[in-house]
Amino acid sequence: MEVENKHIIIKHAIDGLPTESDFELRSTPLVLSVAQGSKEVVVKNLFLSIDPYQLNRMKTCSSSQKTFAAAARIQPGQRIDAFGVGKVVVSGNEEFERDDVVVGLLAWEEYTVVRPGTTLTKVDPHEFPLSYHVSILGPSGLTAYAGFYDICKPKKGEKVFVSTASGSVGSLVGQYAKLSGCYVVGCAGSKTKVDLLKEKLGFDDAFNYKEEPDLKSALRRYFPEGIDIYFDNVGSAMLDAAVANMNLFGRVALCGAISEYTDAGKRAALDMVDVIYKRITLRGFLALDHLNLYAGFISSTSDHLRHGRMRAVEDISTGLESVPSAFAGLFRGDNVGKKLVQLTSL
Amino acid sequence: MEVENKHIIIKHAIDGLPTESDFELRSTPLVLSVAQGSKEVVVKNLFLSIDPYQLNRMKTCSSSQKTFAAAARIQPGQRIDAFGVGKVVVSGNEEFERDDVVVGLLAWEEYTVVRPGTTLTKVDPHEFPLSYHVSILGPSGLTAYAGFYDICKPKKGEKVFVSTASGSVGSLVGQYAKLSGCYVVGCAGSKTKVDLLKEKLGFDDAFNYKEEPDLKSALRRYFPEGIDIYFDNVGSAMLDAAVANMNLFGRVALCGAISEYTDAGKRAALDMVDVIYKRITLRGFLALDHLNLYAGFISSTSDHLRHGRMRAVEDISTGLESVPSAFAGLFRGDNVGKKLVQLTSL
Repeated sequence: MEVENKHIIIKHAIDGLPTESDFELRSTPLVLSVAQGSKEVVVKNLFLSIDPYQLNRMKTCSSSQKTFAAAARIQPGQRIDAFGVGKVVVSGNEEFERDDVVVGLLAWEEYTVVRPGTTLTKVDPHEFPLSYHVSILGPSGLTAYAGFYDICKPKKGEKVFVSTASGSVGSLVGQYAKLSGCYVVGCAGSKTKVDLLKEKLGFDDAFNYKEEPDLKSALRRYFPEGIDIYFDNVGSAMLDAAVANMNLFGRVALCGAISEYTDAGKRAALDMVDVIYKRITLRGFLALDHLNLYAGFISSTSDHLRHGRMRAVEDISTGLESVPSAFAGLFRGDNVGKKLVQLTSL
Repeated sequence: MEVENKHIIIKHAIDGLPTESDFELRSTPLVLSVAQGSKEVVVKNLFLSIDPYQLNRMKTCSSSQKTFAAAARIQPGQRIDAFGVGKVVVSGNEEFERDDVVVGLLAWEEYTVVRPGTTLTKVDPHEFPLSYHVSILGPSGLTAYAGFYDICKPKKGEKVFVSTASGSVGSLVGQYAKLSGCYVVGCAGSKTKVDLLKEKLGFDDAFNYKEEPDLKSALRRYFPEGIDIYFDNVGSAMLDAAVANMNLFGRVALCGAISEYTDAGKRAALDMVDVIYKRITLRGFLALDHLNLYAGFISSTSDHLRHGRMRAVEDISTGLESVPSAFAGLFRGDNVGKKLVQLTSL
């Protein structure tokens, strides 16, 4: 059987704020069959992950491209790989059979041919909503878990600040922090988000950073005893303000710098004298270096979900054609929680 | 017996580049006796340590003063504590007797009355020059040792960059790095210093940063395979350039930021996207948090000295009245190696 496989491409490198017009929906025919013994698996994609970091792969020449493998750069016209969950349509790999539900690196397209060497994992399609395998039980979840537990090394009673706290990672960091007995304040960019943090996600407090002309004094108000842990998703001025309010031996997990992704001129201007005397550690990390935590992450987070101790916050658009606006919306702060695109139902 | 105890004070807070005229030599009478059971010890000071960080304690209101104990601030007119080595003149403490040679927190003065609660340690006056107990076997040595081994966690073959490499700490970091099988490049501010690094201290290479208009490309030249460890003593532009040239999982020990001490407007503007993707760790530290390493530091460094595997680089001025120019000179780059003032011979 042959289908028209729709996919999303970038028309050109994107160096500023992305807009819908930077993208194009294309279609190519795909034969739904694989050669026996080829180990290939054709997956019909159900939910695709929409993540800010992808923008760094779309730039003309970003530092991440230099340091990432060169292969990580997305060329105009090329398929765009992305994490997702899907259903096996046809399999030339004995580990998978038709109708298995799998998660792994798919792409912004309707069908993905997964070649040998790409990790694909079967999941139980019944216990949790399928989207959870892309959000709270997927890379965003592992990023939050590894960053909070392994990089921040929290102790009970410590004061934790999270930026983009209603985002895919921040919303989970805050919940892990509460489960660890920490005091947690988040910031976000709208009243709706702030309310979500305080009323649904158990944050001790939250504020709208757009209403704070002076971030340093805002943080002084929210943390009269100082910040022990800052989980940074934004970089630049917020990072400066957090460091200025940190306690001795404070830890900063550098997870993202979304304010710098669309404007390379925006930079934090850290007071290094402060960093030295307060013995602060700032550490950049990526979840993929912490796969040793994966089993513990899945079992504990599943358990928290089963007992209602955590909740997934998801923001789902429908149809592959919604990918460009879903992606561009990340940089306008449109999303509340993990941004996903749902292509079809199981 | 009563003596005139000369001491150095600051006349006012110092917020920019310090000059000799910011200081004054004063004198107060001191009776060389202690009450029995008082536990006090009067020390005649022999060598006093002259360190850049003291400037942070002399400012009107620096971040270090907020985060340090308030007591760390040096008030105009007040005695200025500093590490040193001296000889016991009279002791009300059974642990010390007259003529013992001791190291500890003394002050920029001729005699220091050491009160109970201040750590004073007896040293063997015969094995090494007394000045070594303030330099290579003193706080500068521990700073280099703890920063390099505990913060940078070097592996054999790694590429190490050291700034202010001919200074009190940098000159030792480079030597420890060579002893650990690393490739080491240092930067300094004069040809004499660069020659010292290459010819006497065993650095693999060294350069004069004043002759490099573009620090990033200079470091690219000296580290074609990238930097694994940067031992930062200067902050600002050099820190940016080092991070831009770092390898994956690079480590930065933030030891000092001398370029920022005299100009709070000078800041590093780190590319956080780079820091994240390269998973770089930046960590501020002070030697006093690493006293658990003290015994190992002393025994291994003494052993290196005995076997000629390390050398102390010292820059010694004579007489208490030379303290202001010795101190101001640190910020002009006058010193080569550890700056000390010798008050008298043993």
